[in-house]
Amino acid sequence: MQNSKELFGFDLIQTDRSSAARAGVFQTPHGAIATPVFMPVGTQATVKTLTSREVDELGAQILLGNTYHLYLRPGDQLLADFGGLHRFMAWQRPILTDSGGFQVWSLSDRRTIDDDGVTFRSHLDGSPHRFTPERVMEVQGRIGADIVMAFDECSAYGADHAYAAVAMERTHRWLERCVTAQTRKDQALFGIVQGNVFPDLRERSAIFIGEQPVHGFGIGGLSVGEPKDVMYSVLWHTTASLPTNRPRYLMGVGSPEDLIQGVARGVDMFDCVLPTRLGRHGAAFTSTGRINLLNAQWASDEAPIEAGCDCATCVTYSRGYLRHLFRARETLGPRLATIHNVRFLIRLMEQARVAILEDRFETFQHEFLATYQAVSERVRDEQRQRYGRRHERAAVSHA
Amino acid sequence: MQNSKELFGFDLIQTDRSSAARAGVFQTPHGAIATPVFMPVGTQATVKTLTSREVDELGAQILLGNTYHLYLRPGDQLLADFGGLHRFMAWQRPILTDSGGFQVWSLSDRRTIDDDGVTFRSHLDGSPHRFTPERVMEVQGRIGADIVMAFDECSAYGADHAYAAVAMERTHRWLERCVTAQTRKDQALFGIVQGNVFPDLRERSAIFIGEQPVHGFGIGGLSVGEPKDVMYSVLWHTTASLPTNRPRYLMGVGSPEDLIQGVARGVDMFDCVLPTRLGRHGAAFTSTGRINLLNAQWASDEAPIEAGCDCATCVTYSRGYLRHLFRARETLGPRLATIHNVRFLIRLMEQARVAILEDRFETFQHEFLATYQAVSERVRDEQRQRYGRRHERAAVSHA
Repeated sequence: MQNSKELFGFDLIQTDRSSAARAGVFQTPHGAIATPVFMPVGTQATVKTLTSREVDELGAQILLGNTYHLYLRPGDQLLADFGGLHRFMAWQRPILTDSGGFQVWSLSDRRTIDDDGVTFRSHLDGSPHRFTPERVMEVQGRIGADIVMAFDECSAYGADHAYAAVAMERTHRWLERCVTAQTRKDQALFGIVQGNVFPDLRERSAIFIGEQPVHGFGIGGLSVGEPKDVMYSVLWHTTASLPTNRPRYLMGVGSPEDLIQGVARGVDMFDCVLPTRLGRHGAAFTSTGRINLLNAQWASDEAPIEAGCDCATCVTYSRGYLRHLFRARETLGPRLATIHNVRFLIRLMEQARVAILEDRFETFQHEFLATYQAVSERVRDEQRQRYGRRHERAAVSHA
Repeated sequence: MQNSKELFGFDLIQTDRSSAARAGVFQTPHGAIATPVFMPVGTQATVKTLTSREVDELGAQILLGNTYHLYLRPGDQLLADFGGLHRFMAWQRPILTDSGGFQVWSLSDRRTIDDDGVTFRSHLDGSPHRFTPERVMEVQGRIGADIVMAFDECSAYGADHAYAAVAMERTHRWLERCVTAQTRKDQALFGIVQGNVFPDLRERSAIFIGEQPVHGFGIGGLSVGEPKDVMYSVLWHTTASLPTNRPRYLMGVGSPEDLIQGVARGVDMFDCVLPTRLGRHGAAFTSTGRINLLNAQWASDEAPIEAGCDCATCVTYSRGYLRHLFRARETLGPRLATIHNVRFLIRLMEQARVAILEDRFETFQHEFLATYQAVSERVRDEQRQRYGRRHERAAVSHA
């Protein structure tokens, strides 16, 4: 690769011998991003509970903003008047915005999809709106992210092959319209692979998206309720059919184990609300699995959430103090847990990158997965019911 | 004064010629405090929404903790096990704890007062508890603050002279018991002047408290519903009868104008939940008065809350961004407004101190009060109704 330093150039520095894992560098107007990378989610122009300085101190290289939310509030025109989202929220590094496609789709009974676009009602006040490929490119242009996503249609887990094909084809036509509609050349456009859980569709979609004049590839329609082994299998079919010379972004994923499994399957970028949402509910990642900070067992515990963790929470505060904050409903509790969880995922990707570069990713992966006790499907389902995030409105209101 | 550097020594560096204002230095085990000083309130082992590092960066020299709240949760024994409140909340500078006297008194229908102490039920779970002078000294000893307050009885605004005298006498007897009960010599004990709005009682109380072996004087029973001119008048009667060689602390006060009026009447220390509570509701101090950050007029405003303000919020974020955060109910909004408001009061006391030292406090006071538009009594009453903080349970639950 000879595109080093070229805008939106992607330098593939090393590809793992034992897997599809890779280490790269992606160039944006606000600086380079070392991949694989986890992107914290700043839905409403803030990573919930954190200042931009704190997010920077966590080692975040790039943030995600949600076009649907920013369009409704504060509004894309207001963001443009402020000189864009970067200035508005005082964040100097790269930003990626989703297209709003997944979010309006998740409004279920509040939206109708046709070949031209999606008509929906705001979850805030019920007001009517319409997103088309052209409209979301215009809105994302005003928001001013470094990377913008094409408008797409996700099909629900459980949809049949015929409908999944319709949604996929629509997504392809919409990408062509996004390419045509794009006016800002300082924004990278990523197309999105769809195709539900069907290997043939995923392959067709990946090949089609890979042939378009885009700077990277989103992988959509996963982590929407399907079992993990299905997701991992679909992921293989997808990345295997994508060109290697541009970054792959697995949208809305995820948990520590999913990040590692994604890296092993050739994914370069991830985003998820999981670390911030879990943090707000008192759950914290550790190298052996999640812990619940509200548990009585931590009451007198002077140790940090995880010994050796380099996050601002762990270097200063004990589990006992955190438990007290959550019991007393002090908002500092969610904030300190968010800091830890986001740092955990950012560091996990930093570690994976070093492991790839040092040609020991296979060992790193096996050791991590052997030690980390993932949450069972049963618990995962319960949490989806309780906290939202599925293919319904909850994906919007709890973003 | 020759007690410089002596533990709990109070060096009076300068007294104003035109008023009773004074600049001093008070020595504690966790360092010296330059007075006059505003103490942010960390009710439940955190200044609401802020980390100890942030509070430090605001220039806070000393924090206040609430014995009633800390006793109930996480409990004074647990705090002792952690090595005290300083270590528990990772705060390296001085701490003052109130005695819980005002807070249990404010439980109104949940407490009964007798000559020996107060029996009350927890606002958390209704469990029965009893505070006596000996008990609160023990609890405060475990919490481990640098300055502890004597147990006192506040009488309600509107109480008659006879009852005010009873509560005052009880407060005096309880101080004697606190002096006897004190075992930790590394904690300064402050007595509390009571006497309601009656000049003769205030004078008697100030003379009595001034004669006790205490390291400073709290002034209690003010800012509990009385008009401002009454408070200012009572304050004159009180400070005029107190010795000058120890610090005076006006408890639970207050607003910017009250701090300046208090300094002019010889007060050295203040605490109040006002800056944090207002911040959580979207109100911010400016040199011309409070503004409501939710107002539509700020939507496109790129200016900070106050031009020239040195707080972390104003050097980074605009009114437009803050308004967005409050509208979107992002907890970062309350946090950023809290940072600004607390810094505003801390800086106001820093400025008053410099003015005293430079022999221009009279001018400083007049200029500030001429510029700052204080909230009217009517609005103040409405806010008390809405947000709590009067002589009822609200003082506890909203501390």
